[in-house]
Amino acid sequence: MLTYNLENRGNTTLYEFLYTSIKNDIVEGKIIAYEKLPSKRTLADHLKISTVTVENAYMQLLVEGYIYSVEKKGYYVSKLQKNFFHQGMDRGKVPINTPKKQDCFMDFKANSINAENFPFSVWSKLTREVLNEKNAQLLQKMPFNGIEELRHVIAEYLYRFRGMVVSQDQIVIGAGTEYLYNLLIQFFGKDIILGVENPGYSKISEIYKANDVACEYISLDQHGLSISDLEKSKSNIIHISPAHHFPTGIVMPIQRRQEILNWANEQENRYIIEDDYDSEFRFTGRPIQTLQSIDENEKVIYINTFTKSIAPTIRISYMVLPPHLMESFRKKLGFYSCTVSSFEQYTLARFMEKGYFERHINRMRNFYKSQRDLILKEINESALGKKVKVLEKDAGLHFILDVNTRRTDLEIMEMAREKGIEISCLSEYYMGSKEDLRHRIIINYSSIDGKKVREAVNQLLCIIE
Amino acid sequence: MLTYNLENRGNTTLYEFLYTSIKNDIVEGKIIAYEKLPSKRTLADHLKISTVTVENAYMQLLVEGYIYSVEKKGYYVSKLQKNFFHQGMDRGKVPINTPKKQDCFMDFKANSINAENFPFSVWSKLTREVLNEKNAQLLQKMPFNGIEELRHVIAEYLYRFRGMVVSQDQIVIGAGTEYLYNLLIQFFGKDIILGVENPGYSKISEIYKANDVACEYISLDQHGLSISDLEKSKSNIIHISPAHHFPTGIVMPIQRRQEILNWANEQENRYIIEDDYDSEFRFTGRPIQTLQSIDENEKVIYINTFTKSIAPTIRISYMVLPPHLMESFRKKLGFYSCTVSSFEQYTLARFMEKGYFERHINRMRNFYKSQRDLILKEINESALGKKVKVLEKDAGLHFILDVNTRRTDLEIMEMAREKGIEISCLSEYYMGSKEDLRHRIIINYSSIDGKKVREAVNQLLCIIE
Repeated sequence: MLTYNLENRGNTTLYEFLYTSIKNDIVEGKIIAYEKLPSKRTLADHLKISTVTVENAYMQLLVEGYIYSVEKKGYYVSKLQKNFFHQGMDRGKVPINTPKKQDCFMDFKANSINAENFPFSVWSKLTREVLNEKNAQLLQKMPFNGIEELRHVIAEYLYRFRGMVVSQDQIVIGAGTEYLYNLLIQFFGKDIILGVENPGYSKISEIYKANDVACEYISLDQHGLSISDLEKSKSNIIHISPAHHFPTGIVMPIQRRQEILNWANEQENRYIIEDDYDSEFRFTGRPIQTLQSIDENEKVIYINTFTKSIAPTIRISYMVLPPHLMESFRKKLGFYSCTVSSFEQYTLARFMEKGYFERHINRMRNFYKSQRDLILKEINESALGKKVKVLEKDAGLHFILDVNTRRTDLEIMEMAREKGIEISCLSEYYMGSKEDLRHRIIINYSSIDGKKVREAVNQLLCIIE
Repeated sequence: MLTYNLENRGNTTLYEFLYTSIKNDIVEGKIIAYEKLPSKRTLADHLKISTVTVENAYMQLLVEGYIYSVEKKGYYVSKLQKNFFHQGMDRGKVPINTPKKQDCFMDFKANSINAENFPFSVWSKLTREVLNEKNAQLLQKMPFNGIEELRHVIAEYLYRFRGMVVSQDQIVIGAGTEYLYNLLIQFFGKDIILGVENPGYSKISEIYKANDVACEYISLDQHGLSISDLEKSKSNIIHISPAHHFPTGIVMPIQRRQEILNWANEQENRYIIEDDYDSEFRFTGRPIQTLQSIDENEKVIYINTFTKSIAPTIRISYMVLPPHLMESFRKKLGFYSCTVSSFEQYTLARFMEKGYFERHINRMRNFYKSQRDLILKEINESALGKKVKVLEKDAGLHFILDVNTRRTDLEIMEMAREKGIEISCLSEYYMGSKEDLRHRIIINYSSIDGKKVREAVNQLLCIIE
């Protein structure tokens, strides 16, 4: 007869303890296959517990297949493969190395924002309002392209601040631009050839390659993507940032935009992905107009994100598809659920609707401008000022230092890292011969500590000398 | 001389109005290419505005390429392509048909939860706490696989409630299981052949197909995925739900689990994706043990989601990779940003850590059980009870009605829809000859209104007669 010391069971319930004990005996071969188990009543009497407890344990063993029942006879042990179950792993044992990031003195690479710049109290208030007022809507199935309220205010925003005429039905909201790129790849299929800017934001080509999409690197001239290189390439879809190219900062002029649109208009399967990732942060003049707004032939897919303008850890981005593509997009990929929580979509919609977003952008633009001015001042006041030329400082969250030095870019970056300063160089973003792009340091100032700038500038001076 | 009526400018600033007016004149050919613009001083005097305003407008036109400057001479109009700019679209004009969902009397298909079942006040309190206390952490760059706090409590949860021994470093958090499937496809590459259950949850094969991954349908027998069909197939990765198959509700017994693991162990490139989507909602006995917990050879990728257990509009799911796969996963796809907002990750971590999740699950299990009991009672008390057999009612958020009727499944669904009742049938989830699976109606009761059940049962009775 099965006998277990029920007092050793600790916190587990009687039924669970009994189930586990019998299961272990079966697994370890102490009760062998086809052996008949005692009747529920007999075992209950033997262990001085209720029949219901035994019944529950037997039911669980039955559902999981450790025992089987024969009508009017009782329960029998199933035949299992021997030596299948070894001892379980300890939880501590799983051997995975998680790389730990080191703290550094000054990070000119990080794209993050300081806590004092995020509107925590407003965001908290709006979240609370949304949770109080929107109970039922928050739990309703969302449209695949995001909640209507958010798409509506985004369309309004694009009209007022970017001069773009789009319907909320053209907008697709997703958890980050990286996710939207993935959707576009599935939409267009793997047979496209994608033209990416060289130099350019390297994650873009990483994503296309992770999806087995053929990528061509297309060079830039002073006006952005080279038309002659584009014409020579086999690409049918290009991914560009005409308002503010990363990392060179080039603004594509109207003539080149016309040429690029002409290229797209020549063939039916040609499209342009316009990545407008930091258009909010131009320090002088108006925002640069978008390619989308002068596209008359539905050739431009516009992408933008709130990760730069609000916070990189709130994962909300969106794209605007031309109307004729939106129809087929819905048919092909409309089965996907929207990847952004409705709670945050409603909160963001309210944040924009009530004017907080506009104010936040203005405040951040001023903040970034003052960060930029501070670094430029420190550079100009130090001996470093004589050895560098500052390029592309009118927009975005970075500028470029054209440095006069004999060191290689690799040496510069490594020496900086030894001193606790993280920097990147333009040449890192370029495929092929890097001669022309050498000695250009990218200074991202989105989240640096102003008090440490002088020290960092002095360190950079030591390095390039 | 350029002359504009500055009083007509409405709300726009002087500089913006001037910029737009000159741009339009250039685009419309009123000022022709190579024509010299008046000097800033002259135009300012002429329009009686400040030189700075003119300078700002000229700068914007210059940056965007509408004009160019010649040193010591002044500004000239650029050569643009003619007839490029037509009138802009009206915002109302974008012609997209957004399908509107009709309201229905009773939806036995919807997978949503009622507002009264979501713990709004707790969630709101925790969100506020997180926003107050975690300022800096909320904005820090996240690990690609999600924040450590959440992975930690998930590992604890899996240990206590699913008997799984996993490290937090094996866990990858993502915005919904659909997104995680996409990551797995990129990880394994397109050359895999994926075996999916037939019948099964149709979205799974839709996603694999949208990614151009070859899919094979593998039939089920009474114990789940058929081993003989699996052996015959060319699949090397299979996607299964052993704890509770959708839609049949089959629980895979231990013997079949051993066979499936043996199949995977035979070849190095074979893996099993275990989709444990609703394991929390078993009404009788303990949760069914996972395949992952008896896998000794790192062959099982375990996936689960909070969309069923908390709310479908909070997009948080996770997967547990075997240690050796996690290393290569990080190398191949670690460049991706985590797709779930850190705000909600911290909130969920706290929700689990403080025991709210466990209590919520228990409350929901009782709620679903009472919903199920209510429908079963109404069915048994009506004449419908004589005409149906109720299958698989022990778990999940649905059961199956095996119906005795001469109507086809299509007729049943259409007649129900006409009466405002949404139902689906098992045969919809099956590829190939549907003979065996006919007349099985799936009744999903996750969010139905109890007061309408009697009426809906009567309607169903009319339909199948």
